[in-house]
Amino acid sequence: MMKVAVILSGCGVYDGAEIHESVLTMLALVRAGAEPEFLAPDIPQLHVVNHLTGEVASGESRNVLVESARIARGKIKDIAQANVGDYAAVFFPGGFGAAKNLSDFAIKGADCQIQADVLRFAKAVAAAGKPACYICIAPAMIPHVYGSGTAVTIGTDEATAAAITAMGGQHISCPVKEFVIDKDRKLVSTPAYMLAENIADAATGIEAAVKATLALI
Amino acid sequence: MMKVAVILSGCGVYDGAEIHESVLTMLALVRAGAEPEFLAPDIPQLHVVNHLTGEVASGESRNVLVESARIARGKIKDIAQANVGDYAAVFFPGGFGAAKNLSDFAIKGADCQIQADVLRFAKAVAAAGKPACYICIAPAMIPHVYGSGTAVTIGTDEATAAAITAMGGQHISCPVKEFVIDKDRKLVSTPAYMLAENIADAATGIEAAVKATLALI
Repeated sequence: MMKVAVILSGCGVYDGAEIHESVLTMLALVRAGAEPEFLAPDIPQLHVVNHLTGEVASGESRNVLVESARIARGKIKDIAQANVGDYAAVFFPGGFGAAKNLSDFAIKGADCQIQADVLRFAKAVAAAGKPACYICIAPAMIPHVYGSGTAVTIGTDEATAAAITAMGGQHISCPVKEFVIDKDRKLVSTPAYMLAENIADAATGIEAAVKATLALI
Repeated sequence: MMKVAVILSGCGVYDGAEIHESVLTMLALVRAGAEPEFLAPDIPQLHVVNHLTGEVASGESRNVLVESARIARGKIKDIAQANVGDYAAVFFPGGFGAAKNLSDFAIKGADCQIQADVLRFAKAVAAAGKPACYICIAPAMIPHVYGSGTAVTIGTDEATAAAITAMGGQHISCPVKEFVIDKDRKLVSTPAYMLAENIADAATGIEAAVKATLALI
């Protein structure tokens, strides 16, 4: 079986990895015959959001690796200890965690930086010419990993697309059930819940993106 | 669209709702044309488990409804405020939350009780002759809802099956990709992660169980 990495950013759309996208990515990978392994950075979350009220839970703190372990059913490791050589491809589900924990895009926009361990891993994937798939808001990290001129989508959100363009990315509008591919860089992106109105539409786009990414191996 | 209820018990296999089962149930429902609405009790979790280490996180406390909202992307309500009349069927994903928060089966075994709001809702579903689907360990609650003689499966785990028998249930061994149906009671159960070795097998069983349940409406 092809081992592939899935990078999580917590557990919950507003402060971590988007749960549906993470599970749908895993399902599509296993059904395609791949063996997903979960990785996450061992760092504190930017904050904790009460998902019932949408408000920040003041005084609470949680760890990205520990919360990501909920989605992974305990089978996860620190991305700082992971070797790109062990994986045939890498997948980044979305959720605000990609823009709050894996990077600070949610706060800094085009001036964002990517968390050091995540950047090292993502750059090593690119340098090794291994395929990568970025989902939902995670593609906002792509320009800082792959450099200017890279084709990428986050769907149709104009403000996010403008920030990606400001970072040197080439944003391409894309419907939820489809994906954008940069063949030179072996890079796939799909909007998922940046556009999805229900889980079935997100699943269709993610399944298509996962298949396209595995085909680049 | 048929509105159906999905009852969550937190967010994470060791102290809440099993995340994959919850998402797979939602996906199967939406793909079948149903409209899932999430419900959970507004109570403290029995405890918080660090899913990276498997240890109880001493001193931490979390609320079942608030954590369940992570899986529901914020769209969830207190089961105490819900009316059975609004739903065509009900679904209980598994995870230890079903045996630690929705009931105390994990501690008391055959002497367990079901949380009051959950019991009221589940009994009203049974009394109304509406179909219900219990997944993974959630079927351990069935004898106290439907009475003795009810056909039910949790897979093949002997200790759990013995406890169900002690409560008056009629346990039937069942492989992960299949389900058990009690047609008189319009009741479906499937083992999911009580047996599943990967997410694809859990998905196959859950999809089959969801379809069979919707067919009973």
